Amino acid sequence: MSTAPSRRSEKARQAILEAAFGLCVERGLAATTIEAIAARAGVAKTTIYRWWPSKAAILLEVVEVRRSADGGYPDTGDIMADLATQTANVTRLFETELGAIWRGLIAAAQTEDIAAEGVRRILRGAIDECVARLAKARDAGQIREDLDLEIAVELIYGPIYHTWLLGTRAMSPPFMDSVLDALRPSLQPPPSCGVGPPPVAG
Amino acid sequence: MSTAPSRRSEKARQAILEAAFGLCVERGLAATTIEAIAARAGVAKTTIYRWWPSKAAILLEVVEVRRSADGGYPDTGDIMADLATQTANVTRLFETELGAIWRGLIAAAQTEDIAAEGVRRILRGAIDECVARLAKARDAGQIREDLDLEIAVELIYGPIYHTWLLGTRAMSPPFMDSVLDALRPSLQPPPSCGVGPPPVAG
Repeated sequence: MSTAPSRRSEKARQAILEAAFGLCVERGLAATTIEAIAARAGVAKTTIYRWWPSKAAILLEVVEVRRSADGGYPDTGDIMADLATQTANVTRLFETELGAIWRGLIAAAQTEDIAAEGVRRILRGAIDECVARLAKARDAGQIREDLDLEIAVELIYGPIYHTWLLGTRAMSPPFMDSVLDALRPSLQPPPSCGVGPPPVAG
Repeated sequence: MSTAPSRRSEKARQAILEAAFGLCVERGLAATTIEAIAARAGVAKTTIYRWWPSKAAILLEVVEVRRSADGGYPDTGDIMADLATQTANVTRLFETELGAIWRGLIAAAQTEDIAAEGVRRILRGAIDECVARLAKARDAGQIREDLDLEIAVELIYGPIYHTWLLGTRAMSPPFMDSVLDALRPSLQPPPSCGVGPPPVAG
Protein backbone atom coordinates (compact mmCIF):
# COMPACT_ATOMS: atom_id res chain seq x y z
CA MET A 1 0.00 0.00 0.00
CA SER A 2 1.05 3.67 -0.02
CA THR A 3 4.02 4.83 1.98
CA ALA A 4 3.48 7.68 4.44
CA PRO A 5 3.46 10.72 2.16
CA SER A 6 5.29 13.99 2.88
CA ARG A 7 3.14 17.05 3.53
CA ARG A 8 3.96 18.51 0.12
CA SER A 9 2.71 15.42 -1.71
CA GLU A 10 -0.46 14.98 0.35
CA LYS A 11 -2.40 17.21 -2.03
CA ALA A 12 -1.39 15.04 -5.00
CA ARG A 13 -2.35 11.88 -3.11
CA GLN A 14 -5.80 13.28 -2.34
CA ALA A 15 -6.26 14.31 -5.98
CA ILE A 16 -5.36 10.77 -7.12
CA LEU A 17 -7.77 9.14 -4.65
CA GLU A 18 -10.58 11.50 -5.71
CA ALA A 19 -9.85 10.99 -9.43
CA ALA A 20 -9.81 7.20 -9.00
CA PHE A 21 -13.11 7.28 -7.08
CA GLY A 22 -14.81 9.51 -9.66
CA LEU A 23 -13.61 7.48 -12.66
CA CYS A 24 -14.61 4.21 -11.02
CA VAL A 25 -18.11 5.56 -10.32
CA GLU A 26 -18.45 6.72 -13.93
CA ARG A 27 -16.89 3.71 -15.74
CA GLY A 28 -16.51 0.89 -13.27
CA LEU A 29 -13.19 -0.46 -12.01
CA ALA A 30 -12.52 -2.65 -15.07
CA ALA A 31 -12.70 0.34 -17.46
CA THR A 32 -10.69 2.68 -15.21
CA THR A 33 -7.03 3.08 -16.19
CA ILE A 34 -3.97 4.50 -14.42
CA GLU A 35 -3.59 6.85 -17.43
CA ALA A 36 -7.08 8.27 -16.89
CA ILE A 37 -6.53 8.63 -13.13
CA ALA A 38 -3.22 10.46 -13.71
CA ALA A 39 -4.80 12.76 -16.30
CA ARG A 40 -7.77 13.67 -14.07
CA ALA A 41 -5.58 14.14 -10.99
CA GLY A 42 -3.08 16.24 -12.96
CA VAL A 43 -0.10 14.10 -11.96
CA ALA A 44 2.38 11.88 -13.80
CA LYS A 45 1.78 8.11 -13.93
CA THR A 46 5.17 7.71 -12.22
CA THR A 47 3.78 9.68 -9.24
CA ILE A 48 0.93 7.18 -8.92
CA TYR A 49 3.24 4.16 -9.24
CA ARG A 50 5.51 5.61 -6.55
CA TRP A 51 2.66 5.09 -4.03
CA TRP A 52 0.45 2.31 -5.44
CA PRO A 53 1.29 -0.84 -7.44
CA SER A 54 -2.06 -0.94 -9.31
CA LYS A 55 -5.42 0.75 -9.74
CA ALA A 56 -6.94 -1.85 -7.42
CA ALA A 57 -4.52 -0.70 -4.69
CA ILE A 58 -5.72 2.91 -5.13
CA LEU A 59 -9.40 1.95 -4.85
CA LEU A 60 -8.67 -0.31 -1.87
CA GLU A 61 -7.24 2.76 -0.13
CA VAL A 62 -10.38 4.74 -1.06
CA VAL A 63 -12.50 2.04 0.61
CA GLU A 64 -10.21 1.84 3.67
CA VAL A 65 -10.28 5.63 4.17
CA ARG A 66 -14.10 5.66 4.05
CA ARG A 67 -14.31 2.62 6.33
CA SER A 68 -11.99 4.12 8.95
CA ALA A 69 -14.32 7.17 8.97
CA ASP A 70 -17.36 5.12 10.04
CA GLY A 71 -18.22 4.82 13.71
CA GLY A 72 -17.20 1.23 14.36
CA TYR A 73 -19.62 -1.52 15.40
CA PRO A 74 -22.89 -0.33 16.98
CA ASP A 75 -23.13 -1.02 20.73
CA THR A 76 -26.43 -0.22 22.46
CA GLY A 77 -26.06 -3.19 24.82
CA ASP A 78 -28.60 -5.24 22.81
CA ILE A 79 -26.69 -7.49 20.41
CA MET A 80 -29.65 -8.50 18.22
CA ALA A 81 -30.62 -4.83 17.78
CA ASP A 82 -27.00 -3.92 16.98
CA LEU A 83 -26.69 -6.74 14.43
CA ALA A 84 -29.91 -5.52 12.78
CA THR A 85 -28.61 -1.94 12.68
CA GLN A 86 -25.17 -2.84 11.32
CA THR A 87 -26.39 -5.31 8.67
CA ALA A 88 -28.99 -2.76 7.52
CA ASN A 89 -26.15 -0.21 7.20
CA VAL A 90 -24.16 -2.71 5.12
CA THR A 91 -27.07 -3.45 2.77
CA ARG A 92 -27.56 0.31 2.28
CA LEU A 93 -23.83 0.85 1.69
CA PHE A 94 -23.86 -1.82 -1.03
CA GLU A 95 -26.34 0.32 -3.01
CA THR A 96 -24.05 3.37 -2.96
CA GLU A 97 -21.20 4.41 -5.29
CA LEU A 98 -18.74 3.06 -2.73
CA GLY A 99 -20.64 -0.24 -2.78
CA ALA A 100 -20.25 -0.42 -6.57
CA ILE A 101 -16.49 0.09 -6.15
CA TRP A 102 -16.38 -2.62 -3.46
CA ARG A 103 -18.23 -4.96 -5.83
CA GLY A 104 -15.65 -4.22 -8.55
CA LEU A 105 -12.77 -4.90 -6.14
CA ILE A 106 -14.32 -8.24 -5.13
CA ALA A 107 -14.69 -9.18 -8.81
CA ALA A 108 -11.02 -8.21 -9.39
CA ALA A 109 -10.02 -10.22 -6.31
CA GLN A 110 -11.11 -13.41 -8.13
CA THR A 111 -8.13 -13.07 -10.49
CA GLU A 112 -5.71 -10.45 -9.05
CA ASP A 113 -3.55 -11.05 -5.97
CA ILE A 114 -3.30 -7.38 -4.95
CA ALA A 115 -7.10 -7.01 -4.97
CA ALA A 116 -7.58 -10.34 -3.18
CA GLU A 117 -5.07 -9.46 -0.45
CA GLY A 118 -6.63 -6.00 0.01
CA VAL A 119 -10.19 -7.34 0.16
CA ARG A 120 -9.08 -9.88 2.80
CA ARG A 121 -7.32 -7.17 4.82
CA ILE A 122 -10.36 -4.85 4.80
CA LEU A 123 -12.75 -7.67 5.70
CA ARG A 124 -10.44 -8.84 8.49
CA GLY A 125 -10.81 -5.43 10.13
CA ALA A 126 -14.60 -5.58 9.80
CA ILE A 127 -14.74 -9.19 11.08
CA ASP A 128 -12.55 -8.36 14.08
CA GLU A 129 -14.95 -5.52 15.01
CA CYS A 130 -17.95 -7.88 14.82
CA VAL A 131 -16.18 -10.64 16.78
CA ALA A 132 -15.28 -8.15 19.53
CA ARG A 133 -18.92 -6.98 19.74
CA LEU A 134 -20.15 -10.61 19.84
CA ALA A 135 -17.61 -11.46 22.57
CA LYS A 136 -18.91 -8.57 24.71
CA ALA A 137 -22.48 -9.82 24.13
CA ARG A 138 -21.43 -13.34 25.10
CA ASP A 139 -20.01 -11.98 28.36
CA ALA A 140 -23.41 -10.30 28.88
CA GLY A 141 -25.20 -13.65 28.41
CA GLN A 142 -26.75 -12.64 25.04
CA ILE A 143 -24.74 -15.06 22.87
CA ARG A 144 -24.21 -18.83 23.32
CA GLU A 145 -21.14 -19.70 25.36
CA ASP A 146 -20.20 -22.48 22.93
CA LEU A 147 -20.55 -20.49 19.68
CA ASP A 148 -17.37 -19.97 17.60
CA LEU A 149 -17.61 -16.21 17.01
CA GLU A 150 -15.69 -16.32 13.71
CA ILE A 151 -18.25 -18.86 12.49
CA ALA A 152 -21.04 -16.59 13.79
CA VAL A 153 -19.71 -13.79 11.56
CA GLU A 154 -19.87 -16.13 8.54
CA LEU A 155 -23.49 -17.03 9.42
CA ILE A 156 -24.50 -13.37 9.67
CA TYR A 157 -22.58 -11.84 6.72
CA GLY A 158 -22.46 -14.89 4.41
CA PRO A 159 -26.13 -14.49 3.41
CA ILE A 160 -25.62 -10.77 2.71
CA TYR A 161 -22.71 -11.34 0.32
CA HIS A 162 -24.31 -14.47 -1.17
CA THR A 163 -27.41 -12.46 -2.03
CA TRP A 164 -25.54 -9.35 -3.16
CA LEU A 165 -22.86 -11.00 -5.34
CA LEU A 166 -24.96 -13.84 -6.77
CA GLY A 167 -28.29 -12.03 -7.10
CA THR A 168 -30.18 -14.94 -5.55
CA ARG A 169 -32.85 -12.57 -4.19
CA ALA A 170 -33.61 -8.91 -3.54
CA MET A 171 -31.36 -7.75 -0.69
CA SER A 172 -33.13 -5.44 1.74
CA PRO A 173 -33.47 -4.72 5.46
CA PRO A 174 -36.55 -7.08 5.54
CA PHE A 175 -34.32 -9.83 4.12
CA MET A 176 -31.74 -9.30 6.86
CA ASP A 177 -34.50 -9.22 9.51
CA SER A 178 -35.53 -12.68 8.25
CA VAL A 179 -31.93 -13.91 8.35
CA LEU A 180 -31.38 -12.65 11.90
CA ASP A 181 -34.73 -14.08 13.08
CA ALA A 182 -33.77 -17.47 11.61
CA LEU A 183 -30.31 -17.26 13.26
CA ARG A 184 -31.68 -16.33 16.71
CA PRO A 185 -31.70 -19.95 18.05
CA SER A 186 -28.11 -20.48 16.91
CA LEU A 187 -26.86 -17.17 18.32
CA GLN A 188 -28.74 -16.86 21.61
CA PRO A 189 -28.38 -19.07 24.72
CA PRO A 190 -30.82 -22.03 24.74
CA PRO A 191 -33.92 -21.98 26.98
CA SER A 192 -32.79 -22.87 30.51
CA CYS A 193 -35.02 -25.96 30.56
CA GLY A 194 -32.80 -27.34 27.82
CA VAL A 195 -29.87 -27.67 30.23
CA GLY A 196 -31.78 -28.86 33.31
CA PRO A 197 -33.65 -32.15 33.82
CA PRO A 198 -36.70 -32.60 31.53
CA PRO A 199 -40.07 -31.74 33.11
CA VAL A 200 -41.85 -34.74 34.67
CA ALA A 201 -44.68 -35.88 32.39
CA GLY A 202 -48.23 -35.44 33.72
CA MET B 1 -28.70 -19.64 -24.60
CA SER B 2 -28.25 -22.12 -27.45
CA THR B 3 -31.17 -23.14 -29.61
CA ALA B 4 -31.81 -26.88 -30.01
CA PRO B 5 -29.12 -27.87 -32.51
CA SER B 6 -29.67 -30.16 -35.51
CA ARG B 7 -27.94 -33.53 -35.39
CA ARG B 8 -25.37 -32.45 -37.97
CA SER B 9 -24.27 -29.44 -35.92
CA GLU B 10 -24.13 -31.28 -32.58
CA LYS B 11 -20.51 -32.23 -33.21
CA ALA B 12 -19.55 -28.58 -33.75
CA ARG B 13 -21.42 -27.55 -30.59
CA GLN B 14 -19.54 -30.16 -28.55
CA ALA B 15 -16.23 -29.01 -30.02
CA ILE B 16 -17.02 -25.40 -29.07
CA LEU B 17 -17.99 -26.33 -25.48
CA GLU B 18 -14.81 -28.41 -25.09
CA ALA B 19 -12.60 -25.68 -26.61
CA ALA B 20 -14.16 -23.04 -24.32
CA PHE B 21 -13.65 -25.26 -21.27
CA GLY B 22 -10.03 -26.01 -22.16
CA LEU B 23 -9.10 -22.38 -22.89
CA CYS B 24 -10.82 -21.16 -19.71
CA VAL B 25 -8.87 -23.71 -17.65
CA GLU B 26 -5.60 -22.62 -19.28
CA ARG B 27 -6.10 -18.82 -19.34
CA GLY B 28 -9.08 -17.96 -17.18
CA LEU B 29 -12.38 -16.60 -18.45
CA ALA B 30 -11.17 -13.00 -18.75
CA ALA B 31 -8.33 -13.96 -21.12
CA THR B 32 -10.44 -16.37 -23.20
CA THR B 33 -11.71 -14.93 -26.50
CA ILE B 34 -14.35 -16.05 -29.01
CA GLU B 35 -11.58 -16.00 -31.64
CA ALA B 36 -9.50 -18.49 -29.66
CA ILE B 37 -12.51 -20.72 -29.01
CA ALA B 38 -13.42 -20.73 -32.72
CA ALA B 39 -9.83 -21.51 -33.73
CA ARG B 40 -9.48 -24.41 -31.29
CA ALA B 41 -12.91 -25.82 -32.13
CA GLY B 42 -12.21 -25.49 -35.86
CA VAL B 43 -15.38 -23.49 -36.54
CA ALA B 44 -16.16 -19.97 -37.74
CA LYS B 45 -16.92 -17.22 -35.21
CA THR B 46 -20.30 -16.83 -36.95
CA THR B 47 -21.08 -20.45 -36.02
CA ILE B 48 -20.47 -19.63 -32.34
CA TYR B 49 -22.53 -16.44 -32.45
CA ARG B 50 -25.41 -18.34 -34.05
CA TRP B 51 -25.80 -20.29 -30.78
CA TRP B 52 -24.34 -18.08 -28.02
CA PRO B 53 -24.33 -14.30 -27.54
CA SER B 54 -21.02 -14.24 -25.59
CA LYS B 55 -18.20 -16.34 -24.18
CA ALA B 56 -19.90 -16.18 -20.78
CA ALA B 57 -22.98 -17.83 -22.33
CA ILE B 58 -20.80 -20.70 -23.64
CA LEU B 59 -19.17 -21.30 -20.24
CA LEU B 60 -22.55 -21.06 -18.49
CA GLU B 61 -23.70 -23.91 -20.71
CA VAL B 62 -20.56 -25.89 -19.81
CA VAL B 63 -21.43 -25.46 -16.13
CA GLU B 64 -25.11 -26.33 -16.68
CA VAL B 65 -24.25 -29.51 -18.62
CA ARG B 66 -21.91 -30.68 -15.82
CA ARG B 67 -24.48 -29.74 -13.15
CA SER B 68 -27.31 -31.63 -14.88
CA ALA B 69 -25.01 -34.69 -14.86
CA ASP B 70 -24.68 -34.73 -11.06
CA GLY B 71 -27.02 -36.88 -9.01
CA GLY B 72 -29.26 -34.20 -7.50
CA TYR B 73 -29.50 -33.48 -3.78
CA PRO B 74 -28.40 -36.32 -1.46
CA ASP B 75 -31.28 -38.03 0.37
CA THR B 76 -30.40 -40.68 2.96
CA GLY B 77 -33.33 -39.68 5.18
CA ASP B 78 -31.00 -37.79 7.58
CA ILE B 79 -31.04 -34.10 6.63
CA MET B 80 -28.00 -33.02 8.68
CA ALA B 81 -25.93 -35.86 7.15
CA ASP B 82 -27.15 -34.94 3.66
CA LEU B 83 -26.32 -31.24 4.18
CA ALA B 84 -22.82 -32.25 5.33
CA THR B 85 -22.36 -34.49 2.28
CA GLN B 86 -23.63 -31.93 -0.23
CA THR B 87 -21.74 -28.94 1.19
CA ALA B 88 -18.55 -31.04 1.29
CA ASN B 89 -19.15 -31.88 -2.39
CA VAL B 90 -19.54 -28.16 -3.15
CA THR B 91 -16.32 -27.20 -1.35
CA ARG B 92 -14.48 -29.92 -3.31
CA LEU B 93 -16.03 -28.79 -6.60
CA PHE B 94 -14.82 -25.23 -5.97
CA GLU B 95 -11.22 -26.53 -6.01
CA THR B 96 -11.63 -28.13 -9.44
CA GLU B 97 -11.21 -26.66 -12.97
CA LEU B 98 -14.99 -26.32 -13.17
CA GLY B 99 -14.89 -24.42 -9.87
CA ALA B 100 -12.34 -21.99 -11.35
CA ILE B 101 -14.67 -21.40 -14.31
CA TRP B 102 -17.61 -20.86 -11.94
CA ARG B 103 -15.50 -18.32 -10.02
CA GLY B 104 -14.75 -16.50 -13.28
CA LEU B 105 -18.43 -16.44 -14.23
CA ILE B 106 -19.37 -15.00 -10.83
CA ALA B 107 -16.69 -12.30 -11.27
CA ALA B 108 -18.08 -11.54 -14.75
CA ALA B 109 -21.61 -11.44 -13.31
CA GLN B 110 -20.64 -8.35 -11.30
CA THR B 111 -20.49 -6.31 -14.52
CA GLU B 112 -22.15 -8.35 -17.34
CA ASP B 113 -25.90 -8.96 -17.59
CA ILE B 114 -25.63 -12.24 -19.52
CA ALA B 115 -23.29 -13.71 -16.89
CA ALA B 116 -25.41 -12.37 -14.02
CA GLU B 117 -28.62 -13.80 -15.48
CA GLY B 118 -26.96 -17.16 -16.13
CA VAL B 119 -25.45 -17.38 -12.65
CA ARG B 120 -28.87 -16.60 -11.14
CA ARG B 121 -30.53 -19.25 -13.33
CA ILE B 122 -28.01 -21.97 -12.38
CA LEU B 123 -28.20 -21.11 -8.68
CA ARG B 124 -32.00 -21.07 -8.80
CA GLY B 125 -31.92 -24.70 -9.92
CA ALA B 126 -29.52 -25.61 -7.09
CA ILE B 127 -31.53 -23.65 -4.51
CA ASP B 128 -34.80 -25.31 -5.60
CA GLU B 129 -33.20 -28.75 -5.12
CA CYS B 130 -32.06 -27.81 -1.59
CA VAL B 131 -35.43 -26.27 -0.67
CA ALA B 132 -37.22 -29.45 -1.85
CA ARG B 133 -34.89 -31.61 0.29
CA LEU B 134 -35.40 -29.33 3.31
CA ALA B 135 -39.19 -29.43 2.83
CA LYS B 136 -39.10 -33.24 2.88
CA ALA B 137 -36.99 -33.11 6.05
CA ARG B 138 -39.46 -30.66 7.61
CA ASP B 139 -42.30 -33.11 6.87
CA ALA B 140 -40.17 -35.77 8.62
CA GLY B 141 -39.84 -33.54 11.72
CA GLN B 142 -36.11 -32.88 11.18
CA ILE B 143 -36.42 -29.15 10.31
CA ARG B 144 -38.25 -26.40 12.23
CA GLU B 145 -41.87 -25.93 11.12
CA ASP B 146 -41.49 -22.14 11.16
CA LEU B 147 -38.21 -21.89 9.20
CA ASP B 148 -38.34 -20.08 5.83
CA LEU B 149 -36.56 -22.66 3.66
CA GLU B 150 -35.24 -20.07 1.17
CA ILE B 151 -33.64 -18.27 4.12
CA ALA B 152 -32.28 -21.62 5.35
CA VAL B 153 -30.48 -22.04 2.00
CA GLU B 154 -28.89 -18.59 2.45
CA LEU B 155 -27.72 -19.57 5.95
CA ILE B 156 -26.15 -22.82 4.72
CA TYR B 157 -24.58 -21.67 1.42
CA GLY B 158 -23.90 -18.00 2.28
CA PRO B 159 -20.89 -18.90 4.46
CA ILE B 160 -19.48 -21.16 1.71
CA TYR B 161 -19.55 -18.43 -0.95
CA HIS B 162 -18.50 -15.72 1.53
CA THR B 163 -15.42 -17.75 2.41
CA TRP B 164 -14.66 -18.86 -1.14
CA LEU B 165 -15.12 -15.51 -2.94
CA LEU B 166 -13.74 -13.21 -0.22
CA GLY B 167 -10.98 -15.47 1.13
CA THR B 168 -11.97 -14.75 4.73
CA ARG B 169 -10.68 -18.18 5.83
CA ALA B 170 -9.55 -21.56 4.53
CA MET B 171 -12.59 -23.34 3.15
CA SER B 172 -12.67 -27.04 3.95
CA PRO B 173 -15.02 -29.80 5.07
CA PRO B 174 -14.06 -29.06 8.74
CA PHE B 175 -15.16 -25.46 8.17
CA MET B 176 -18.54 -26.60 6.85
CA ASP B 177 -18.90 -29.05 9.77
CA SER B 178 -18.46 -26.05 12.11
CA VAL B 179 -21.02 -24.01 10.14
CA LEU B 180 -23.59 -26.83 10.20
CA ASP B 181 -22.99 -27.49 13.91
CA ALA B 182 -23.52 -23.79 14.65
CA LEU B 183 -26.71 -23.78 12.50
CA ARG B 184 -28.19 -26.88 14.17
CA PRO B 185 -30.34 -24.93 16.69
CA SER B 186 -31.74 -22.72 13.92
CA LEU B 187 -32.46 -25.64 11.58
CA GLN B 188 -33.73 -28.35 13.91
CA PRO B 189 -36.97 -28.33 15.96
CA PRO B 190 -36.50 -26.89 19.48
CA PRO B 191 -36.32 -29.22 22.51
CA SER B 192 -39.88 -30.24 23.42
CA CYS B 193 -39.53 -28.65 26.88
CA GLY B 194 -39.32 -25.32 25.08
CA VAL B 195 -42.95 -25.60 23.99
CA GLY B 196 -44.40 -27.08 27.21
CA PRO B 197 -44.71 -25.44 30.65
CA PRO B 198 -41.36 -24.62 32.35
CA PRO B 199 -40.19 -27.15 34.96
CA VAL B 200 -41.26 -26.31 38.52
CA ALA B 201 -38.30 -24.91 40.46
CA GLY B 202 -37.02 -26.97 43.42
